[in-house]
Amino acid sequence: MTKTLKPSRRDALRVLAGSALAVPVASSFAVAGQSQPQLPSEGVFELGDLRLESGATLPNAKIAYKTHGRLNGAKSNVILYPTSYAAQHGDIEWLIGSGKALDPEKHFIIVLDQLGNGLSSSPSNTPAPFDRMRFPAITIRDDVSAQHKLVTAGFGIQRIALVTGWSMGAQQTFQWAVSHPDMVERIAPFCGTAKTTPHNFVFLQSLRSALTTDVAWMKGDYQNQPVQGVRAFSHVYAGWAFSQPFYKQQLYRQLNFNSLEDFISGFWEQRYARRDANNLLSMVRTWQLNDVGATPGFGGSLDSALRSIKAKAVVMAGQTDLYFTAADIEAEAGQIPGARFVTIPSIWGHMAGLGLNQVDNQFIDKEIRALLAR
Amino acid sequence: MTKTLKPSRRDALRVLAGSALAVPVASSFAVAGQSQPQLPSEGVFELGDLRLESGATLPNAKIAYKTHGRLNGAKSNVILYPTSYAAQHGDIEWLIGSGKALDPEKHFIIVLDQLGNGLSSSPSNTPAPFDRMRFPAITIRDDVSAQHKLVTAGFGIQRIALVTGWSMGAQQTFQWAVSHPDMVERIAPFCGTAKTTPHNFVFLQSLRSALTTDVAWMKGDYQNQPVQGVRAFSHVYAGWAFSQPFYKQQLYRQLNFNSLEDFISGFWEQRYARRDANNLLSMVRTWQLNDVGATPGFGGSLDSALRSIKAKAVVMAGQTDLYFTAADIEAEAGQIPGARFVTIPSIWGHMAGLGLNQVDNQFIDKEIRALLAR
Repeated sequence: MTKTLKPSRRDALRVLAGSALAVPVASSFAVAGQSQPQLPSEGVFELGDLRLESGATLPNAKIAYKTHGRLNGAKSNVILYPTSYAAQHGDIEWLIGSGKALDPEKHFIIVLDQLGNGLSSSPSNTPAPFDRMRFPAITIRDDVSAQHKLVTAGFGIQRIALVTGWSMGAQQTFQWAVSHPDMVERIAPFCGTAKTTPHNFVFLQSLRSALTTDVAWMKGDYQNQPVQGVRAFSHVYAGWAFSQPFYKQQLYRQLNFNSLEDFISGFWEQRYARRDANNLLSMVRTWQLNDVGATPGFGGSLDSALRSIKAKAVVMAGQTDLYFTAADIEAEAGQIPGARFVTIPSIWGHMAGLGLNQVDNQFIDKEIRALLAR
Repeated sequence: MTKTLKPSRRDALRVLAGSALAVPVASSFAVAGQSQPQLPSEGVFELGDLRLESGATLPNAKIAYKTHGRLNGAKSNVILYPTSYAAQHGDIEWLIGSGKALDPEKHFIIVLDQLGNGLSSSPSNTPAPFDRMRFPAITIRDDVSAQHKLVTAGFGIQRIALVTGWSMGAQQTFQWAVSHPDMVERIAPFCGTAKTTPHNFVFLQSLRSALTTDVAWMKGDYQNQPVQGVRAFSHVYAGWAFSQPFYKQQLYRQLNFNSLEDFISGFWEQRYARRDANNLLSMVRTWQLNDVGATPGFGGSLDSALRSIKAKAVVMAGQTDLYFTAADIEAEAGQIPGARFVTIPSIWGHMAGLGLNQVDNQFIDKEIRALLAR
């Protein structure tokens, strides 16, 4: 792909790195199976019929993405960076930038939109009969399967220097290493587990219950978003995603909120009010189903799946993360041959990995940088 | 009161200890201000007009209670044991029993029903204009004020050997020591704080949001309980009250639930389905307002209020408690002169103090026993 890039396009890509520049999506469709189409730097890739792990087939499935930097001639500088829960590719760019570990001057970084996130195939953008709550169950393996098609058939890439991601992005990162051990050279999952723990499942179920209690949800067939249910959902999330001392020390002031009340409404309510309710529920289900041990060939064993990983790994956990606990992550990391496990010394809870504060950002960046040098 | 007890009554009281025997409530009313009425061992005490901290007056207020054991002649063997969130006096009797620290053979134990719990004055049992969501805001100090009337005017008691309680019971325990420093000899609050932390407030707000999202709640004027909202409420609670490793290790099997699903429905949903929704919301508000520092005379200072405590104290925290964290409790205990702080080495989270497992029960019992010996 790089070989055919015109100079003006190269310049445009450099400018694009870290920016919010939107490339028109409608004009940038490409179709899987065509021989290495020249994909735009931001677009939606047509997957055709996507066979899902559940047995269902999602017709005309699509995956959205955005790239940063240039693919080198050896196609050896690829970094995959899948999105986290309810995020879209523009939301997680904090990790990318000139001089950072994920450096568009050096790497070809593909930010991958998870199925259900509103840009890739989702309840909100899929026609009947798979619209809304009729959208099929998606697993993390389905995400990786879709991403693999984009990466191989779309970009013609066969080697991945690094997969990294936060939270549900970490789930996808583990799955990449398990599903494609000879393709993925390094992984840096942070603040996420390879299998959803029972407690995490309970937390997620409470999000689902809070949202679906709103009569306006109408089992997914709403005309208008179930605003009150999504608000209750966001209030539940608020307690889990930051730590107890974060709230005690009023660190939300660093995010320019002057009171707890402002923070709950201005940060939390806004965070999910912009999303589609059925999409939120679809991604909750994917999260609940997450388990690399269920990958074919491992007999349901989480440990066997983790032990099969060949990628060099740094696995990071937030010290005060309440649902992806450091203890849970450390136990998993201990099964990955040669993996380095580190704790992010942060009181930002799970949000240590969201790019909200420079100290945690630099900690994560430094670890990824060290991994890339191995 | 003891002096006039007939032998048959003594026997009945012994039998009563730890039992679910119900004394008819309607026939056991007593009125504050009368000279030392002989109160029944289980009853509802009329408080008359209760002036609340908010400035409102609750007419014909009442407080329910149940006693275990006999008041000795010196009236020196009194233990107060206030209820925890949504509990009624019969729900917390695990701590009481022959041979235990709270021994009805030795002590006169008064289990005190918190305002809003459905037995004492509550949204569910108060007539208009203070019924339902029109029930006034109750503070922990209002609880202690009502309890003080019962104890002094009702039972003629002026000295308290011990106040102990779990969770919201701990809140009332701290308040007793701050409001009546010369009356309370010992306190043993466990798994609770003297001031509600901001994070705890956020968790509580999410409970409120989950419940009130149910359209059937009708701002409190429901004909039938808002079942779905209360269920969502219970699902949120489920994630917070036990720890992450509790769920991972499936310790709910010790409670005779065979699956996570059974546990959520059989334990959690049932736990709150039996309660009135407005009562649940009233007690959430009381919890959110909790702050001994707001006691008159301390200028809003939590530390000043804690430093004023004269009672001998043992303050216990659950090692894995997610909303009354050990760190928060230890910080408060450090302000109480001479207080002993201990951590309950448990993975039962906040529920280490609910009496569900023998190891934690014995730990708590032993600490209270040691305190009573001081």
